[in-house]
Amino acid sequence: MGDTRELLLPRWIVPVRPEGLVLEAHGLLIEDGAIAELAPAAELLEAHPEVTTTRLPDHALMPGLVNIHTHSAMALMRGLADDLPLMRWLEDHIWPTEQRWVGAEFVRVGTELALAEMIRGGTTCFNDNYFFPDVTAVAADQAGMRAAIGIPIISVPTAWAQTEDEYFRRGLDMHQQLHDFPLVSSAFAPHAPYTVTDKAFERIRSLAEEMDIPVHLHLLETAGEIQLSHDEFGMAPLDRMDALGLLTDRLLAVHMTQLDDPDIARLARRGVHVLHCPASNLKLASGTCRVADLDAAGVNVAIGTDGAASNNTLDMFAETRLAALVAKGASGNPEAVPAERALSMATINGARALGQHDRFGSIEPGKRADLAAVDLSAMETAPVHHVISHLVYAASRHQVSDVWIDGRRVLERGALTTIDAERTARETEQWGRRLLESDRRSAGTSNP
Amino acid sequence: MGDTRELLLPRWIVPVRPEGLVLEAHGLLIEDGAIAELAPAAELLEAHPEVTTTRLPDHALMPGLVNIHTHSAMALMRGLADDLPLMRWLEDHIWPTEQRWVGAEFVRVGTELALAEMIRGGTTCFNDNYFFPDVTAVAADQAGMRAAIGIPIISVPTAWAQTEDEYFRRGLDMHQQLHDFPLVSSAFAPHAPYTVTDKAFERIRSLAEEMDIPVHLHLLETAGEIQLSHDEFGMAPLDRMDALGLLTDRLLAVHMTQLDDPDIARLARRGVHVLHCPASNLKLASGTCRVADLDAAGVNVAIGTDGAASNNTLDMFAETRLAALVAKGASGNPEAVPAERALSMATINGARALGQHDRFGSIEPGKRADLAAVDLSAMETAPVHHVISHLVYAASRHQVSDVWIDGRRVLERGALTTIDAERTARETEQWGRRLLESDRRSAGTSNP
Repeated sequence: MGDTRELLLPRWIVPVRPEGLVLEAHGLLIEDGAIAELAPAAELLEAHPEVTTTRLPDHALMPGLVNIHTHSAMALMRGLADDLPLMRWLEDHIWPTEQRWVGAEFVRVGTELALAEMIRGGTTCFNDNYFFPDVTAVAADQAGMRAAIGIPIISVPTAWAQTEDEYFRRGLDMHQQLHDFPLVSSAFAPHAPYTVTDKAFERIRSLAEEMDIPVHLHLLETAGEIQLSHDEFGMAPLDRMDALGLLTDRLLAVHMTQLDDPDIARLARRGVHVLHCPASNLKLASGTCRVADLDAAGVNVAIGTDGAASNNTLDMFAETRLAALVAKGASGNPEAVPAERALSMATINGARALGQHDRFGSIEPGKRADLAAVDLSAMETAPVHHVISHLVYAASRHQVSDVWIDGRRVLERGALTTIDAERTARETEQWGRRLLESDRRSAGTSNP
Repeated sequence: MGDTRELLLPRWIVPVRPEGLVLEAHGLLIEDGAIAELAPAAELLEAHPEVTTTRLPDHALMPGLVNIHTHSAMALMRGLADDLPLMRWLEDHIWPTEQRWVGAEFVRVGTELALAEMIRGGTTCFNDNYFFPDVTAVAADQAGMRAAIGIPIISVPTAWAQTEDEYFRRGLDMHQQLHDFPLVSSAFAPHAPYTVTDKAFERIRSLAEEMDIPVHLHLLETAGEIQLSHDEFGMAPLDRMDALGLLTDRLLAVHMTQLDDPDIARLARRGVHVLHCPASNLKLASGTCRVADLDAAGVNVAIGTDGAASNNTLDMFAETRLAALVAKGASGNPEAVPAERALSMATINGARALGQHDRFGSIEPGKRADLAAVDLSAMETAPVHHVISHLVYAASRHQVSDVWIDGRRVLERGALTTIDAERTARETEQWGRRLLESDRRSAGTSNP
């Protein structure tokens, strides 16, 4: 990499911390992967005349986006089936496809596709939950992507593991392997209350504390989940998680569409993080997460796309805009989740959920240099009255020109530098053909 | 234009009528601005070896999008103020800006900006409602854009007209001028029940019938409107419009967030068209349009972006996706408004609302050639399992490469052919500076 220093001189800097701030005529010095200085451009140029300078004259520089909940390899099933009730979608399309095809090679290609899409769209960190996490971890490391890789735990046999025990064993092996991957961390990823036993949850609680990693769990995705829990465990899912000692600031609870006021107060007291996936919740008609109330109660809410099989993108710009819009519509309050708060939810709040907000998620000296440059000179974002408004409400991920992760430029003027885009496209097309043919056969549909 | 014939050979054609159809290995012959033939590619090539051929090997060709409700010139106020209650947004920002600045020049530049944005995004027709409609009409004509231009009627004096009488007089003059503009039609655009008198509504009803043009009206945007109407007119807005003879298939009712079951049945019986603007409704927390129920009742629902001051884009791809998602979330039914129905709402249903569905809105022989080519080779839409799913749920307007309106190629490999993009960008920046400075002074804010 030669010189490990780079001076970035964008038109605007949106540090995210403090929330709402926009700096003009400022620059940023990257040194050894970290943000070494954030200062007026003139001062930086004078102090570091020898450093390579990257001018971004039409750009807003912001922290890279943190996609706090996804199943990246599912990008290969993007649009395979839509507009169906959850169980028909799963039973007729997603599960048969997974049972037939999911393995190391599927996960490698799917993850590489997802990484390409995410990096091109300004995402610099993702929190994943899928099978063959060891393969996902390798792909993230090779792409230079920051990631938290879930250790999947589910009481259903898959190609990855047959028993809960085997899920733990293989997951812990994967966790060991991460010592070689400086940007990749892990999290326990029990699937959901209705697919994981008390015994496994207890083991997760104890191991997660010992290993000091988060617990990433689908929770209260739909109303049906509550009745199921009462029938099987004699209590609501939130009470069961509480009884199992899981309602702590280590818990990353995904979806959370079924919350009453006391639930929200309890989550706030315990420091539970809520991972909000508005497109998935709407598309599957799962319910509405009370984001405005959670935010007002002080709960840390972070935004994720969910998998591309249900979204159908990994577009954090679209997801952040959607979160800001839906929060207003659902609460009846047009002041709920303003643009600057939505941007926090898409960056620093994701880092906070992972317990790494001192390392990334905002542009502050000392943090790792995870950055996205967004070209605001397009017609679609003209005129520029307020930069943060445009980043949230008007800009598209297609306006992202450059991305740095840990100081390394992984997207340079629209070109991926760590992923072989041509190979990924070719392999994606091959897998696409295979999956579509098998889906048509098993579902008996024929409409292109 | 030389040869007026062009043969298009895309990878896929999505005609929209019949709904859900995707053709492969087909082509389309444009002749004198119309779709002359739609047939297998091999047949067309054999029958017309002399015709200029445009190959679109990675593209889906679809009907151009119809943005059925917008205020195009307001693009200059994109992001000027956000995240405020409606009245503070209007009284502290939008109205002072309009009072100070709106005139022929503002509307020309704002409309040209909007036209550039819309054409780049695959929109080939828009239904507008703003002041200085004569200027909007000229701009649309010059850009080669299909448009329905509203004749604004409001009992509030503006720079365009001082009295209701003057609004009618100037609007009718504008209507006359349209004889020279083959792609531009007109519509009455009374602002809303609470800003237009019974007398003016009666005159609109009678003139609209005589002139055979639609009536484009903000109706039931918020719950507050209903109480206001009871207080002032002793009846609900829908009853008042009925008493005034306006509830017919000539009425294009925008927003309609406050509907009960009998209302929906009445709209269906009368053939009233509902213009749905989901982003605006969410952002301003206006309420929820019951799109799934309207659609099930047989009401013609068409999709619009509203103005960019409240959206903050004129992005019909984003709006169509949002409409499909919100319909499911709001109805609790994941099968509501599937992708193919959402695409109809964004194309043929808009044409139908304007009474012009025999002229455009779908790809059928005999119709005018209003078309958009979408490049699906990007990572963001790979793999391609189902084309219509991708057009609605995954593709971005930035993947639109080429656009034809009335057979004329107005976007060619991403470049505008009828709009001076450089001049528009320069003038937009000048206006942007002016508006922001005056907004800061009047609102006393200083945060960039």
